[in-house]
Amino acid sequence: MTAGFAAALSQAQAKISTHMDMRLPQADLLHEAMAYALRGGKMLRGFLVLESARLHDVPEAAALEAALAIECIHAYSLVHDDLPSMDDDDLRRGQPTLHRKWDEATAVLAGDSLQTFAFELLARDEVGPHALPLIRALAQAAGKDGMVSGQMLDIAAESAATPLTLDQITTLQARKTGCLIEWSACAGARLAGANPEPLRHYAQALGLAFQIADDILDIEGDAATVGKAVRKDADAGKATFVSLLGLEGAKSRAQELAQLASTALTPYGAAGETLKDAARFVISRDS
Amino acid sequence: MTAGFAAALSQAQAKISTHMDMRLPQADLLHEAMAYALRGGKMLRGFLVLESARLHDVPEAAALEAALAIECIHAYSLVHDDLPSMDDDDLRRGQPTLHRKWDEATAVLAGDSLQTFAFELLARDEVGPHALPLIRALAQAAGKDGMVSGQMLDIAAESAATPLTLDQITTLQARKTGCLIEWSACAGARLAGANPEPLRHYAQALGLAFQIADDILDIEGDAATVGKAVRKDADAGKATFVSLLGLEGAKSRAQELAQLASTALTPYGAAGETLKDAARFVISRDS
Repeated sequence: MTAGFAAALSQAQAKISTHMDMRLPQADLLHEAMAYALRGGKMLRGFLVLESARLHDVPEAAALEAALAIECIHAYSLVHDDLPSMDDDDLRRGQPTLHRKWDEATAVLAGDSLQTFAFELLARDEVGPHALPLIRALAQAAGKDGMVSGQMLDIAAESAATPLTLDQITTLQARKTGCLIEWSACAGARLAGANPEPLRHYAQALGLAFQIADDILDIEGDAATVGKAVRKDADAGKATFVSLLGLEGAKSRAQELAQLASTALTPYGAAGETLKDAARFVISRDS
Repeated sequence: MTAGFAAALSQAQAKISTHMDMRLPQADLLHEAMAYALRGGKMLRGFLVLESARLHDVPEAAALEAALAIECIHAYSLVHDDLPSMDDDDLRRGQPTLHRKWDEATAVLAGDSLQTFAFELLARDEVGPHALPLIRALAQAAGKDGMVSGQMLDIAAESAATPLTLDQITTLQARKTGCLIEWSACAGARLAGANPEPLRHYAQALGLAFQIADDILDIEGDAATVGKAVRKDADAGKATFVSLLGLEGAKSRAQELAQLASTALTPYGAAGETLKDAARFVISRDS
């Protein structure tokens, strides 16, 4: 991690966490469970929102609502994905998953209200004059033709007779994780009413690089460092970028994508340096 | 059911169903499961949206998005509420619950994407210039301080040492079912940028009357007609309006509330007649 990116990421984490404490007072068990689900992540999506907003001179008060909103959507998807009827995971971000810490009903409801809360945040006055296109884009990215459809494809793949092809895995991951990363990186442009295309190209390469790195971590990583179970996909015989491209092939594809992501930021000149660092970080992270 | 209300309700059901078929093409299993969850309900909430929009001369194209949106939120809450880890129900609207028809993972994800879809619909251009306050109000009504908090209270009540008091049940139900009914009835005024207060008073009385009627149905109803299991609450020893007020007391309270709901519509004159009929229907329904 370069010093510039490391500082920007940890600043983003601190700002989003402070904002979370203000917007989500721990009034009762439900609020507490929601806050639990939000804590301990890298907040890469929230960072992308804040950084793309900075590139477009968007007021930080607007960007913070959007950054917290996307972290809520991401956290809700993890809580539901970890449920016994889905991936049945016990560990997330180094802590017990929400249904292990409390119970399944609390996990279902905390996930549900994290999603609602994301839209509540985006409908706040602070978001400014371009809230509606941002809300529309989030609903499209997170819903039946975006993230959730990717999760459905993922479940179907588990019981499929033949492993997925590279094209199918790429589609699956573009929906499951790519859509939210794309929304995050485009958020700054959308909040400013500007053209999100350069950031979209950046994010599409970044999102795929991120997922390839995830598959590499599943093979090379250590559960204690990664903060969740590893080798689950490999042991289950699931097709991954590593099983399809080989370990070295996957690493060099991730490198190419990180380079592609950097090139997409050319219109931003030197101001895009931190986002370029983020692309390098994504393929070299150990958790 | 009076002829005027019966006609208005069945017209609303037909219009919302047609709109649903257009907005939710059955592209894959996820879309199919979402549509399954939406079908077969009374669409009382959608009716309230269309009828309140009519009172405020809101274009029907706008009202239909809002009507379908609230039916999506209601359907998602039922799908998740029926899960084994929650109420564990096998029957809903006379059909197998979604996790019985398919499986739990599909039920979790179909519910999740129904919620997302509701916000996607409300962010459409058709909704017009007052979409944002409508979205904000829905997120508040459905989330951590609204419907989901009511569900949490309901779960907590099941393991509580003493049954809830009348005040506690009233609070629980105002959140669990009242908030969405209130949003629905106020939607027409909000879409028009008008004052929703008369409709709010109507809806608050209507929502409570609706829930008292539900508790009466749980005692007096027949599962085949009601379309879901009955006597669950009574058999579980849960406090209900009937256990707290007695059957006759509950019936006369429901009557008073229906009258109160009607009185709240006085500012609308004769135009409010169909909504007054709806209040009478709510306390006399058999399903």
